[in-house]
Parts: sequence; structure tokens; C-alpha cells
Amino acid sequence: MTSVRPVAVVGGATTKFGVRQATWSELVQEAGARLFAAIPNLAASDVDSLFVGAAEPERFAFQSHVAPLAAELLGLEPHRIVQRTELACASGQSAIRSAYAAIAAGLADVAVALGVEKMNLPSMAEANTSMACVMDRPWDGAHGATAPPFFAMVAQRHMLEYGTTEDQLAAVSEKNHRFANSNPEAQFHEKSFSREKLLRLPLIAPPLRLGDCSSMTDGAAAVLLVSGELARKYTDTPAWIRGSGQHASWHNLANAGSLTDWTGMRIAAREALGSAGITASQLDFAELHDCFTISEIVEYEALGLCKPGEGGAYVTDGRSDLGGDVVVNPRGGLLGCGHPLGATGVAQAVEVYRQFAHTVPPARQVPDPEWALVHNLSGSANVHSMMVYARGG
Amino acid sequence: MTSVRPVAVVGGATTKFGVRQATWSELVQEAGARLFAAIPNLAASDVDSLFVGAAEPERFAFQSHVAPLAAELLGLEPHRIVQRTELACASGQSAIRSAYAAIAAGLADVAVALGVEKMNLPSMAEANTSMACVMDRPWDGAHGATAPPFFAMVAQRHMLEYGTTEDQLAAVSEKNHRFANSNPEAQFHEKSFSREKLLRLPLIAPPLRLGDCSSMTDGAAAVLLVSGELARKYTDTPAWIRGSGQHASWHNLANAGSLTDWTGMRIAAREALGSAGITASQLDFAELHDCFTISEIVEYEALGLCKPGEGGAYVTDGRSDLGGDVVVNPRGGLLGCGHPLGATGVAQAVEVYRQFAHTVPPARQVPDPEWALVHNLSGSANVHSMMVYARGG
Repeated sequence: MTSVRPVAVVGGATTKFGVRQATWSELVQEAGARLFAAIPNLAASDVDSLFVGAAEPERFAFQSHVAPLAAELLGLEPHRIVQRTELACASGQSAIRSAYAAIAAGLADVAVALGVEKMNLPSMAEANTSMACVMDRPWDGAHGATAPPFFAMVAQRHMLEYGTTEDQLAAVSEKNHRFANSNPEAQFHEKSFSREKLLRLPLIAPPLRLGDCSSMTDGAAAVLLVSGELARKYTDTPAWIRGSGQHASWHNLANAGSLTDWTGMRIAAREALGSAGITASQLDFAELHDCFTISEIVEYEALGLCKPGEGGAYVTDGRSDLGGDVVVNPRGGLLGCGHPLGATGVAQAVEVYRQFAHTVPPARQVPDPEWALVHNLSGSANVHSMMVYARGG
Repeated sequence: MTSVRPVAVVGGATTKFGVRQATWSELVQEAGARLFAAIPNLAASDVDSLFVGAAEPERFAFQSHVAPLAAELLGLEPHRIVQRTELACASGQSAIRSAYAAIAAGLADVAVALGVEKMNLPSMAEANTSMACVMDRPWDGAHGATAPPFFAMVAQRHMLEYGTTEDQLAAVSEKNHRFANSNPEAQFHEKSFSREKLLRLPLIAPPLRLGDCSSMTDGAAAVLLVSGELARKYTDTPAWIRGSGQHASWHNLANAGSLTDWTGMRIAAREALGSAGITASQLDFAELHDCFTISEIVEYEALGLCKPGEGGAYVTDGRSDLGGDVVVNPRGGLLGCGHPLGATGVAQAVEVYRQFAHTVPPARQVPDPEWALVHNLSGSANVHSMMVYARGG
């Protein structure tokens, strides 16, 4: 579905991602300072709305009512809309989608979408317990069915059905960590992340090893979204939102469909690409939600980049790498950048803006990109959220 | 600011509010069942989007990622938008505002906005601690500056500046509890809530007594919002959204402005009424956020129903009662209905729909209402959110 009024992302910034000696509020301030530095023409008084994407600040940072707190920390006084959106691992994209809807509806003109998560706590037992809240807690979370075991089941099933290998999983991790080496804001800068080395890392949930899993990360990111007629005030290279799609199906694992055919992602992709008027093969790059290596492989298939079962070969054949068909996760992905839940979706949009503006290092610059897609899943891949961007012409 | 595409609330329902022997999920299901019962023409497959307003399910119900969980509990498979919004005590209205923006933008057509909160826990110490998260936690919440002491300061200051009396505070509580007696879904049905009795209740935070404070309540509410051309499929009496306004200023109490002149509410009211093209005196009724009795008195003034300092007399003169100028809180308010944070804003919209449809008992029916306003504040009255509704013609 296309909206009625053009909306563009006209700039963005992220903090350094990692295990940060910084509070939730300090991360917000750091992202805000970098956003204003990145958009010289932006005055705080221009901003009429603030959308904050945050998954679990109530547990991770013991802080609720976070949108007005973030407004104060950023020096903003939103007089149109202020709110926080939560959709677990897709909370950041939800903030962008809310800003997009508000501007498209004519209810806002200049909006900041900020994503943030402070996940590293003195007690990581508390942090891990909080992650169980993302699942249907009394049925699934309490019985240990959190993210690593769920995606391990996906991997095992994909291996059984299609013969996918641990080496193919490692190829995803190798690619994304290699891209992360050219991203100073990424959590990991491991210069020698070879497949061989990855296959010697400890098992987390078989067959997933340490290098197959994204991490508990602290970070924040922010983008500026404006209505079409204001875009050129802030940038020469707007990233236009041309399509969006989202689908939610089951939540309780007992109601899950196929582990390896993500129907909801197919539906969201049809909607997102259809509203943009393009096909998956026309994409120049895609930021896909590689919370685990197996996720990216299943996502190639659900997005329609290859047929079911061909995802493993898609990565080892270099089709998702620079020089391939569709570059996937040039930012470094969740695997290389870390995954601060609320920040991830916003940081992906920052990468889209920067790729279109040709301001990333050559090691990850996609040549002359025209179309990009951002994807997040949440929970047990039961919700899929997508947006399609076009480079400003 | 007016949106580009008409949007209407075409029906709604709430659970019984109170100290419920029901889980978070059971409250959601109860509101959903009542919503579908209230709108016979609504099929689950009609609904393309779900917006959930919930303040602190992570702490009160140990559950995050609540939007897809609610979708499953309601039997929905949203294929356009699914997300949760959080804005503390205004979380419910935020869900409605998000649905409004999405439909106005053409990104959704048929959306459920659901508000829910399960606040009564085996350990109320945990619940009360969680409420401290709503404030700037390390600065204000940790030092005891939660809602009752903050609004007690507002009351003390209003008394000092304007001579407002405890009897005037009690008049607000008496009116709203009287209205609640005709609302079977309200938490409280106290037949003899006289001002004299209210003034003998124990002090909570001087001068606020038990009857001056809204309560920790379990409850859920849901409304259906649709694009204009679909409204008549579901109802003969749509409630059209004609205006909205919101303002966020400070968060940390050290940065607070006047305790008694709520500038943010004045700005939000100017925006909301201005976009609807009416003045406050044209309202037939208003659902104002009476989290405490003093709140409603200050809100009369900030909304422009009377001059600063005249709020106390406004209620004792009957100007906010049936037969007065603008009926305030005919539903029974937060004082009479209880205040399940995420549910309140949605339940207020249900009341607007029912008042326009003339389906409430005569004891609280506003005669032939044409215009209504819904207001929520959050935190320390540092954020104000408003929507203006017009009866379908």
C-alpha cells in the first residue's frame, strides 16, 4: 500500500555499538548529538514529533515513559506527536513506520525516529530472563524456548529438508563480520573471521555456534524523516520511502507454521515490494534481520532472492556479497554490528541513507544503489516488518 | 493539523474494570470478545492492523512483544501494521492516534486499537515500584517523586495561589463517582459518595485523600477505526476524528514549569481544537484525565473552560455536570472507573462512541452531543495528548 504524501529519510547517525560504559540516557544523548552533527541544517525547533523505538527499557533500564524522557535528553519539545513503539527486535523499524505514517497523513512534518537499547547489565541473568518476555512467557519463555533454541530448530530443520551445512551458516557470519570491519560503529572488528575459525567456536544451541548468533548490545541510532517538500532543506540525497509491508501470524510456538518457510515474510515482502512497484531482483541491497546466520539464509528464500532450499548456496556462491545479485547486510548485519533491539531497525535505515549518499567506506559501498529494502523480524519470526527505499532522483 | 483522509471510530467495548481475577491475556480476550459482539458486521478477516496500547506489561505481566500476542488472542492476522505504543498513562490514546495516522495515510483501512493493563499483582510492592519507572527514574522515581506526591504538590500550590479548597476537590470525586454508578464496567459503585464522606477518607498525600486518587486497576478496552468510506458498513453512528493535539515539554521534575498552569495542555488544546475548527465552549462533553481530583480542576483551566483559578468553582457550580456548560467525564472518569494505564484512553473513546450513539444510561447521557474531546496526560503532566471527535451526520 502506498501512502498519500511522500516521506523521506534525510539523514541519520548511530552511536558506537557494543558493551558500553554508558547509561540508557547517555546512549540517547550520544545518538542525538551525532544526528544534529550529521544534519547541519537541522534546528531542534524544526522537529515537531519524536518516535522512540525501544523494546524493554522497563526491564533493561528500569525506565518507562521513555519518549518524553528522550525528548528532554535531545533538547526537543515535540508539539505534534511523541510516543514510543515496541515490537521486540523490530521496535526500531516500528518507530520509523510510525513516523512515516504520521507524516504521510499530514499529522507531522519533521520527525525524529530514535531507536535505543541498553542490554548489558551488571547481572546478565536478569537480562537473559528479560529476553524470555519476548516469547509467550508462561507457555514458551518459561520453558526455555527463547531465541537461540528456536533458531537452532530452524537450522536443524533446514539442514534436514535441504542439506544446508554448517559451512554455509559460517559463510553468512564471515560475510557480515567482514562488512563490519569497515563500519567503525559496529560492535565487532575481528580481522580474521574465517569460516574455519567460525566452525571451531563453541556451540550455543546446536548447530548454532557463537559466531552464528548476534549479541546483547548497547546502542542507539536516530534518523530524521520529513515530508517530501522539506527534503531538500536537509539533504541532496533523500532516501524516499516507497513501500512498506508487515505481517503477524501466530505467537505461541504451539501454533507455529513451517519452521523453514516463513509465510509471513513472503506476505510482507509481496506487500512492501508491490507497493513500491518493484520485484526482489531489482533491489541493489537489503538489510535483512540476521539475528542468527540461519535467519539470513531463510530470508533469502522468503524474500524470493532464490528458491526454497537454495539459501545456503546463495551465500557461498557470493550472490549476497558485493559483486553478487543483491548485497545483503553491507552495514555488517546484526551479527557484525551487534543487536541493541530498539536501535537495530533505525541503524539499518541509517545505512540505507549513507549507501544512497555514497558516504560509506569502499569496502562496503554498493555501486550506485537505487533500491534498498530493510527487514526486521521479531519474536520467533512470527512477525515480519519491511520497508522499501528509493534513492532520491 | 487535519489529516488527509477521514477516519472514524465505529464501535468499541471494554471489560469490567477492577481488581480482576484474570491474567493479562484473559483481559485481552475479554475485550476482544466484547468488541466483536458490539460490532456484528465485523469479521476477524476484515481487520488489517492492530495497535496495542500498554504501559508496562514487561513489569506488571512479565510480558513484552505484546502486539502479536494480542493479535493471536483476538484471532487476528494483521497484514498491514501491528505494533504496541507506550506513553505511560496515555498509552491507550497513543494506540488510537497511531491507528488514526495509519488509516489517514492510506497505510491501513480497518484497525483495532486495544488498550490493556494488568496492575494488581500478588506483590503490590512490585507494582508500586514499577510505577516509579514512569518518572525520570534515577533522579525522581528513586527519590519518591511518583504520581501522588507530584499531584499533591499541584493541589497545594493551587490552593495557595487561588484558594482552592478540599471541598472543591471532593466535588470532582463526587461527580465522577456518581457518573460511575451508571457505568456497569466501572471499578467503583459507591452509592453514597458524598463530599462529606470523601472528606473523612484517609490522607494519601496531603491534601489528597483516598477519594481524590484514581486506583491501580485491571482492565482492557478496544475500538474499531476505519477509513471514512467503510464507516457505514459497521455503524449508523460513526464518531469522526476531527482533530488531534499533543505536546511534550520537560521530563525531569527539576525542569518543570508552573505546577498550576499546564502550558503543554494549552498548546495541545489549541492544536486539537484548532484542527477541528471549534472552540472549547462548543464541546458538549469532554473525557479529561482525572488521575487525581486536582488534575480535573487544573484541566478545566488549561482547556479554556474557565479562567486560571476558577476551576474549583467550575465544578461546585455544576458547570462540568449534566445541565452545565461542558459535561466532564460522564463515563465516571479515572476516579470512578479506575485507571488501568493502557486501557483508559481507549475506554474514553468507547464512551465517546456510545454517547454519540445514545446507548448509555440516562443518568450519564449527554443530550444530543455533537462534539467531544478526549484528553490524557502522562507522567508529571509533562505530556498532554488530545483528540476531538464529531458525531457522524
